[in-house]
Amino acid sequence: MALPASRLSALLAPRSVAIVGASPRENTLGNNVVVNLRRFGYAGRILPVHPSAPEVAGLPAYHTFAELPEPAECAVLAVPADKITAALEEGAAHGLRAAVVFASGFAELGEEGRARQRELQALCARTGIVLCGPNCLGLVNVHKRVSLYSSGIPEGMRDGGLAVVSHSGSACIALSTLGRFGISYLVSVGNAAVLDVSDYLDYLADDSETKAVALFIETLRDPAAFARAMRAMHEAGKPVVALKVGRSAKGAATSAAHTGSLAGNWDAYQAYFRRHGVIAVDDFDELAESVELALKLRAPPQGDGVAVIAVSGGEASLVADLAERADVRLPELAPETVARLRTVLPAFGNIGNPLDTTDRGVYDAQNVYSGSIRALADDPSVSLIAVVQDCSPGLSARGANNYRRIAQTVADAAREIAKPVVFFNTAAGGLHPHVIEPFASSSVAVMQGARASLLAISRLLTHARFAPPDEPEALVPALVWRDRLAAGTPFTERESKAFLAAHGIAVTRETLARDSSAAVQAAAEIGYPVVLKIESPDLPHKTEVEGVRVGLPDAVAVEAAFGEIMGAARRHAPTARLEGVLVQEMVSGGIELIAGLSRQEPFGMGIVAGAGGVLVELMRDTALDLCPFDNAGAHALVARTRASRLLQGFRGRPAGDAEAFAALLARLSQLGAAYGDLLEAVDLNPVAVLPSGRGALVLDALVISRKPTSQGSP
Amino acid sequence: MALPASRLSALLAPRSVAIVGASPRENTLGNNVVVNLRRFGYAGRILPVHPSAPEVAGLPAYHTFAELPEPAECAVLAVPADKITAALEEGAAHGLRAAVVFASGFAELGEEGRARQRELQALCARTGIVLCGPNCLGLVNVHKRVSLYSSGIPEGMRDGGLAVVSHSGSACIALSTLGRFGISYLVSVGNAAVLDVSDYLDYLADDSETKAVALFIETLRDPAAFARAMRAMHEAGKPVVALKVGRSAKGAATSAAHTGSLAGNWDAYQAYFRRHGVIAVDDFDELAESVELALKLRAPPQGDGVAVIAVSGGEASLVADLAERADVRLPELAPETVARLRTVLPAFGNIGNPLDTTDRGVYDAQNVYSGSIRALADDPSVSLIAVVQDCSPGLSARGANNYRRIAQTVADAAREIAKPVVFFNTAAGGLHPHVIEPFASSSVAVMQGARASLLAISRLLTHARFAPPDEPEALVPALVWRDRLAAGTPFTERESKAFLAAHGIAVTRETLARDSSAAVQAAAEIGYPVVLKIESPDLPHKTEVEGVRVGLPDAVAVEAAFGEIMGAARRHAPTARLEGVLVQEMVSGGIELIAGLSRQEPFGMGIVAGAGGVLVELMRDTALDLCPFDNAGAHALVARTRASRLLQGFRGRPAGDAEAFAALLARLSQLGAAYGDLLEAVDLNPVAVLPSGRGALVLDALVISRKPTSQGSP
Repeated sequence: MALPASRLSALLAPRSVAIVGASPRENTLGNNVVVNLRRFGYAGRILPVHPSAPEVAGLPAYHTFAELPEPAECAVLAVPADKITAALEEGAAHGLRAAVVFASGFAELGEEGRARQRELQALCARTGIVLCGPNCLGLVNVHKRVSLYSSGIPEGMRDGGLAVVSHSGSACIALSTLGRFGISYLVSVGNAAVLDVSDYLDYLADDSETKAVALFIETLRDPAAFARAMRAMHEAGKPVVALKVGRSAKGAATSAAHTGSLAGNWDAYQAYFRRHGVIAVDDFDELAESVELALKLRAPPQGDGVAVIAVSGGEASLVADLAERADVRLPELAPETVARLRTVLPAFGNIGNPLDTTDRGVYDAQNVYSGSIRALADDPSVSLIAVVQDCSPGLSARGANNYRRIAQTVADAAREIAKPVVFFNTAAGGLHPHVIEPFASSSVAVMQGARASLLAISRLLTHARFAPPDEPEALVPALVWRDRLAAGTPFTERESKAFLAAHGIAVTRETLARDSSAAVQAAAEIGYPVVLKIESPDLPHKTEVEGVRVGLPDAVAVEAAFGEIMGAARRHAPTARLEGVLVQEMVSGGIELIAGLSRQEPFGMGIVAGAGGVLVELMRDTALDLCPFDNAGAHALVARTRASRLLQGFRGRPAGDAEAFAALLARLSQLGAAYGDLLEAVDLNPVAVLPSGRGALVLDALVISRKPTSQGSP
Repeated sequence: MALPASRLSALLAPRSVAIVGASPRENTLGNNVVVNLRRFGYAGRILPVHPSAPEVAGLPAYHTFAELPEPAECAVLAVPADKITAALEEGAAHGLRAAVVFASGFAELGEEGRARQRELQALCARTGIVLCGPNCLGLVNVHKRVSLYSSGIPEGMRDGGLAVVSHSGSACIALSTLGRFGISYLVSVGNAAVLDVSDYLDYLADDSETKAVALFIETLRDPAAFARAMRAMHEAGKPVVALKVGRSAKGAATSAAHTGSLAGNWDAYQAYFRRHGVIAVDDFDELAESVELALKLRAPPQGDGVAVIAVSGGEASLVADLAERADVRLPELAPETVARLRTVLPAFGNIGNPLDTTDRGVYDAQNVYSGSIRALADDPSVSLIAVVQDCSPGLSARGANNYRRIAQTVADAAREIAKPVVFFNTAAGGLHPHVIEPFASSSVAVMQGARASLLAISRLLTHARFAPPDEPEALVPALVWRDRLAAGTPFTERESKAFLAAHGIAVTRETLARDSSAAVQAAAEIGYPVVLKIESPDLPHKTEVEGVRVGLPDAVAVEAAFGEIMGAARRHAPTARLEGVLVQEMVSGGIELIAGLSRQEPFGMGIVAGAGGVLVELMRDTALDLCPFDNAGAHALVARTRASRLLQGFRGRPAGDAEAFAALLARLSQLGAAYGDLLEAVDLNPVAVLPSGRGALVLDALVISRKPTSQGSP
């Protein structure tokens, strides 16, 4: 449950701050915090606590919480790990409501540290103290001039709309020192013993100073809380841009199923971010440009078409290349737009998108840029206009004057049109201040680095169309299947398919035969040709024990195959329990795809789908989404695989029943949601997607119930 | 043929410069050039040419070339396009050897412009004038203070080792105004009517001021000349970093063959760059960081292992993620290294790579950084040490002082070890000048943006191991096959395979049968089962006319199939010339791959190889190299496809004869070199790669001779 904002305001906007460990010695942590609070202009009461010193940095000091002239709303604990709980106990006894703990030596440092952190958590739960840290730099409320921060406050840090919330202290430093954004809050979350990113997001969703949030995330401990916070952010119209690190860590392969293992943990994070409208980025530069654009793009653009105006052909070509890689669509311009542009740039044969203004754009900036922007703004295929330049800090004075004239014209034109106008320098590494000055009071986002800027445009245009997905109808789990899964014993293919069929997923017609004459009779009922497969709870990998025969055309073949399969199984696995042979209809003419349900912690169950067969792993053509989703979600999932082209009728082959496959995936995802606490994985490999209108059919399936050892964590 | 350096020195280091179109009016092009030359400190003679004015910018002006007091070695033509040839004719008559033409209105502007450019080329060829442009910004020789440049000279441009050569004027501006590199030459190549990038490279290879070259390329007109220039650069030990634009242009699909069409033109450029040791980058930021590293990395590192030292865990995690994406290998450290690091960072459980120094690295910089760098330098798996920080321009004064201490320690340590040390800021967007000052006189490359910096490290480490590939033995073309290809008539499968077999490529055993009894006899000789295929020069797509039967087990089946195939062909294509039916051995148990030879202009013929079947296009799992290459080159080509894992024995399947497939590809590439002028494409689809030691066999082939219409261009 989200904390009420009033509780967090004791931390983020306290009326008084006690500094435990305040020190009269300069250049110590306990002195710096006091000095910083005063210098930063904190208007509340500063209450240094020191066992003996009469004053700290010119302020009267108090020996204990008990001696404070008024209860401190918040305390900064500038003392080592082993002194923290005692100080908090004392504070709590005297009305303390919030605290910042800088000290390391908690969960990040072995078993002793973890025990210490648990103690801290218990104390806070008992006393109701909201706590930032431990193992953090603390926090800054720039607007209210609250600095509970152990690192140096950047001299140039100014009040503004961006909140920075970071698990990493150095990322706080990195983002607050770019010098590009006005900051509302800077929060170093640290070990998140009590408050995590979601709690701060909840608060920021309602905070009037904050317009957008930049997150640096190492792990999400409570995805449900984060999802709730994201919904609040979305409703408040505040974009959240996140850099998640730790993607390359190999560990935590959580699923036993072959298909699930293809989708690494980062795929699950991406699916989660997509679902909850988090703008995910890959490095600080993408983060910075996305934040710049998020802060400036007040009204979400209506479409995804971008028009680019460049000052040279080479630049235009570079931007076209990078736009393609960044998935930015540069639409063909309407004939009327081209005609209007031709009056502005009469000498040119090529009027296109990107638009190359050549040196005429420099020498006749007013006409060329103003005219071009107005013409492009009227083009229905254009939703955003990007002006590109090369205005790095080393530009000559003459060049800077020329480019500044262009910037002024662009800033003026942007005020007069409804569609957003953005500006970016082709290189990162800084912008010439004289050139970009005209943008200062405009709505024009000013970015740098063509690649990162185009990625920001791509992501913000996608985000503008974000809506939280509809929750599909929940599937009510059947008690009998819950009991079966809870038993934990292995499923055979037949039992796995029975589980699927019971929940509305189509599977092959099949009969278990315990002797060869039963097999022949079953085959006759099913219709030739048939497939025979060994049925044993102990043999999940049937091919490896020569347990599969396909395309059996008649009774003779079935009788022989029965004997061979049973014989081979006894030979390969003398102790396996053999229940008989499954006689199965032979399905041909379908497109073979895979679908898998697997554990994707910390997000619960996920669905992986993609191309089937031995090429699955080779080509890595799978996509992942989290459970549950509806048919529309399933179509979106499939569209992210190249196998989707197979379903469309690739190279003259008949199109597959994409609707049926989507419905199957959606249903499987609802199974995942309903039985997720008891399931480890479900592996459908392959699913035959028949020609349009004829359905999709599970040819082989394996249900793996959750291992008892992991049943402790929900 | 490369121009002698003495001819280019008339352009790049002239003893005297005439300015045609010199103007007494300030802020005109013809005035600026004169003023810039004087202000920049040009020591040669400046000779303004003006039809009437007695002086320009304080220098005596002359009416014509004839009146000059001495022959001008070089002329800057600051006059419009229609005045260029007359001025050059006059100059040539008076000893002019080189010229810079700024004017546009040449090949970039329609047929009239192209004619004007041809006239300009003819004039230069006749008179021997070397010419920069037209349609360019001109050039600057920073060391010799020669500015023949129409744009503003960046105030901060200083003398240094980087030459910038660019087809685009704006890229010249973008790269010269980053303010990060000392520049030797800045050349805006323009339309390259006379001198192109290769000519400047030739000159720069021998130029003592130039240590590395940054290229911005729109197109390569003469790959052979560029290759020669690159060899000279390589021999001189000067890295060339290139940003090639225009990759997304759809046009110029040069090959009719299905496989060739998978490899876009940019793939061919990449293959060409790889072959000639060009460090290819994707944007200005990657270009800038690669240049910084190229200028600083004097001795090429010996391996590809990189050790990273970061100031925080979050930063370390981010760098690990981005290193994986950039293909930078962060090796496990040796136990001795870990033990030594533990003495430097005693409190830590995790000593790894990346190494997180935490705040101890800040408060005890000398011990931590100096000790860590020395320990890592002694680790045999480490070839380069990267120190990572967050030192953007907005850093607090306290933070900057802390980080500067680290920087000083790193710079000092770098002087004492043999392995290269580099430094990068996690964000781009500038560096705090106080922090990085200690690196100024050191060998430490100072980069920004974790992603671009890691890509630079990856590329420069790869480049350090570059050696021009051995030229494989040339295949001598057979006259009979040259005649056959020149005839231009379509090849059948049998004829295509005969062409391959004649050049040492293994194909299926097969016989052409003109009636069913001949087919049965051929099948008996080849051995059952067999494949039957229609043989007709008019039916390259045999499946579409029901012209293929596989797995025929006996004479009865062959006889029936013969009739069916001939009947179907007559039905589908009544006018096709049917030569009969090809009776072919049925090859099973092989891994089916494809190999294709196709035209990859402007580089001649190329080879595409990858996975076979309908999945080829779906999965886009192909790689391309240019002809010719040897077996080692073929192995490298295959290694760039995921199909290479099939050859290694993927998921329990037997390994394929990778040697035989490589030999086949190498041979095919030599065919491409030998017959390239007469071939359009050769399509081997599929090739069966049999288990190790058993060879690789072409199952189907189609040779397409070059279309007569395109035989004009060699």
